[in-house]
Amino acid sequence: MKVVKFGGSSVANAVQISKIINIVTAEASRRIVVVSAPGKRHGEDTKVTDLLIALANAVLAGDDYETALMAVIARYAEIQKDLELPEAVVFTIEADLRGRIENRGPNDLQFMDTMKASGEDNNAKVIAEAFIKKGHPAKYVNPCTAGMLLSDEFGNAEVLPESFEKLAALKNEAEILVFPGFFGCTKAGDVATFPRGGSDITGAILAAAVQAEVYENFTDVDSVYAMDPRIVPNAPAIDLMTYREMRELAYAGFGVFHDEAVIPAVQHEIPICIKNTNRPEAPGTMIVPERKFEQTEVAGISSAAGFCAIYIDKYMMNREVGFGRRLLQILEDEEISFEHTPSGIDNMSVILESKELGEKEKIVVDRIMNELKPNDVSVAHGLALLMVVGEGMHYAVGQAAKATNALADAGVNIEMINQGASEISMMFAVKETDRKKAVHALGGAFFS
Amino acid sequence: MKVVKFGGSSVANAVQISKIINIVTAEASRRIVVVSAPGKRHGEDTKVTDLLIALANAVLAGDDYETALMAVIARYAEIQKDLELPEAVVFTIEADLRGRIENRGPNDLQFMDTMKASGEDNNAKVIAEAFIKKGHPAKYVNPCTAGMLLSDEFGNAEVLPESFEKLAALKNEAEILVFPGFFGCTKAGDVATFPRGGSDITGAILAAAVQAEVYENFTDVDSVYAMDPRIVPNAPAIDLMTYREMRELAYAGFGVFHDEAVIPAVQHEIPICIKNTNRPEAPGTMIVPERKFEQTEVAGISSAAGFCAIYIDKYMMNREVGFGRRLLQILEDEEISFEHTPSGIDNMSVILESKELGEKEKIVVDRIMNELKPNDVSVAHGLALLMVVGEGMHYAVGQAAKATNALADAGVNIEMINQGASEISMMFAVKETDRKKAVHALGGAFFS
Repeated sequence: MKVVKFGGSSVANAVQISKIINIVTAEASRRIVVVSAPGKRHGEDTKVTDLLIALANAVLAGDDYETALMAVIARYAEIQKDLELPEAVVFTIEADLRGRIENRGPNDLQFMDTMKASGEDNNAKVIAEAFIKKGHPAKYVNPCTAGMLLSDEFGNAEVLPESFEKLAALKNEAEILVFPGFFGCTKAGDVATFPRGGSDITGAILAAAVQAEVYENFTDVDSVYAMDPRIVPNAPAIDLMTYREMRELAYAGFGVFHDEAVIPAVQHEIPICIKNTNRPEAPGTMIVPERKFEQTEVAGISSAAGFCAIYIDKYMMNREVGFGRRLLQILEDEEISFEHTPSGIDNMSVILESKELGEKEKIVVDRIMNELKPNDVSVAHGLALLMVVGEGMHYAVGQAAKATNALADAGVNIEMINQGASEISMMFAVKETDRKKAVHALGGAFFS
Repeated sequence: MKVVKFGGSSVANAVQISKIINIVTAEASRRIVVVSAPGKRHGEDTKVTDLLIALANAVLAGDDYETALMAVIARYAEIQKDLELPEAVVFTIEADLRGRIENRGPNDLQFMDTMKASGEDNNAKVIAEAFIKKGHPAKYVNPCTAGMLLSDEFGNAEVLPESFEKLAALKNEAEILVFPGFFGCTKAGDVATFPRGGSDITGAILAAAVQAEVYENFTDVDSVYAMDPRIVPNAPAIDLMTYREMRELAYAGFGVFHDEAVIPAVQHEIPICIKNTNRPEAPGTMIVPERKFEQTEVAGISSAAGFCAIYIDKYMMNREVGFGRRLLQILEDEEISFEHTPSGIDNMSVILESKELGEKEKIVVDRIMNELKPNDVSVAHGLALLMVVGEGMHYAVGQAAKATNALADAGVNIEMINQGASEISMMFAVKETDRKKAVHALGGAFFS
């Protein structure tokens, strides 16, 4: 069986919901459908989740909230009308929302989660009705009843391990199951939500729980592309890649979905397929535990700006036991995450996101000066990282030459290079101003 | 003024000593001469220092040591005869050695240092006589009287900071000063030696103390070469390089002298010149704090075998705060030095000398498995590191391309690459079996 997840733009209105009904019913194996709250219908639109947050804030502030409530109801009413569902559907949603507000408890974070979760929850009920209306046996599943148990970190909850066993029972149901994404319940029975984008997490958990043959994640693009289409509009599609390739690519600028969201599916080795709700016939991108690969094949090239490098120079650093560890300890003390630590003999660089360093730059530089007593410390800003990713990369003679040649031919200076043992990626740091030029140059070398 | 240091092969016999007298007296600025103990006169010969160690061990073992003593005396007697010095010189040396043995104290390490130091000490006395004999005003300087104060780590002593001020007075002497290398005295007045090769250290300390215009280090090669002449016999000479280039090159296989030995000269920014006792007219290699450089210029290429890499793979490693620090902590706990830590998104490699890991491999791998819970840990053995070193390296577009192309054309797979910010070197790890091929390939690319 397949678990199929649809994002907000795929369930934003009746037209889109009709598409997903067609998609789901086109294959009998598509048995569990995870849905988001209605998203934007057009560029200027507001997502239902954002309307719900505004409503919740109005309630918390003690303001009149009828207008905010009506804005939410209006979105569902439009869908109900266009899908020709009974008006009672909308009355039920209104009663549900008023109930959530009236039964508000003392914990404002929990209240906010309850309100946000209603977006997915009510949409799932509407969509289940829509399936039935079109003659397909379907039913809404309540995550709390089904066993989606979460930690009580409201707004940032994590799934509890026992959920998987409980949710496994869903594979025995006869109907198409419409499961609202984004939330579950704590052991105390309170609604709690995942971090935003959490419908992807719900889908991944369900796919893992029922041991789905594939987790289909429907978005609004045909596939994942080998380069950012905003930089390279004609970038080739990726048909197949591994989880590791996905991670390396997602790291620097691949925004199709949060790679962290699909961890449950990865851990249970469920293949993930990225597909387009608006063009379901396109094959999409399959993401799998292992793949066969050609040695020369590169899966993709990603890039991201906003990095900086701390550079530390100390004569005889190489002989100082614990130098690197003490440097990383300073960063850990200051709660700064870093990305890479390329090094020479008497110098060491730490590459990190500029926003990680931010206002702590002076503190960090001072601590390094005082505690490590280097000859020199400096911080270089305005760096972009480029990742050339491919499972076969490590085994092929000449991949580094191909990449560095392309950058040299384009006149791009390489600030740093990092490639570890058995790695499936090569990292280059370049100046942010060279980023697009560098992506084009690497794309030309590996994909033309 | 110049401080001039001669190694063991430059003072091994009368012919060599005559050469050094000519070298020193050829320039009036050559005022302080640091000498080693007599080294090998030919390939099969034994260094006087080794004869002295054998003598000291015989004494410590309570064995008859007359033969061992005579072997040492014989070396000086030969020099005395060939230089036509008075026989009394040899009698004095014999008396000195018998005195050191008779006055042996309770500390065997200190006794060993006293005996080893006699090699340099007596040779300095002989060489001072030789200068005088040839009509050049000269005098032997006793390091202990002159203020060469060392820590009391016998066999591995370090200079004490107050030495520099005391030794500065040497610049006021009229005669050529012959100063024995390798040893000094503790505050308690006991002879103590530097680590082996310590005459280089003595010269560097004196050059720093008297603020010499240059520290001339005479060896048996014309210069430092851009590549190991054992691998590339026609490697070009390096005329000028910086301390940083020296460090990077010395790190992997440049064996002309211990780069750590010259730290005092580096810290005081004294230029160092490597010259050949047997061809003093050759310009040698100057090593300076800063140099002008062409952007495309590479100073040298060094290589060393005997490295391994620990490779750690963990899904979502990138988001785990402190992962890198904890890995390095394990190595520090186990007293293992590492060289580089190239990394990907979800993996990290640690490159280190195989002998550092040695028998601790299983312990380290087990600790990583238990404490860091990675998906995979493996150790790759049989790696060689190559360093392409040049001050201008970082600023030039295409240097990485040139290097990686050359390796690709030679069919050498690059296992790892490491190049940090503002660095003057690029590191490549290759299989040990590819090392020579790789050096030739890089040499061809940068020096042909």
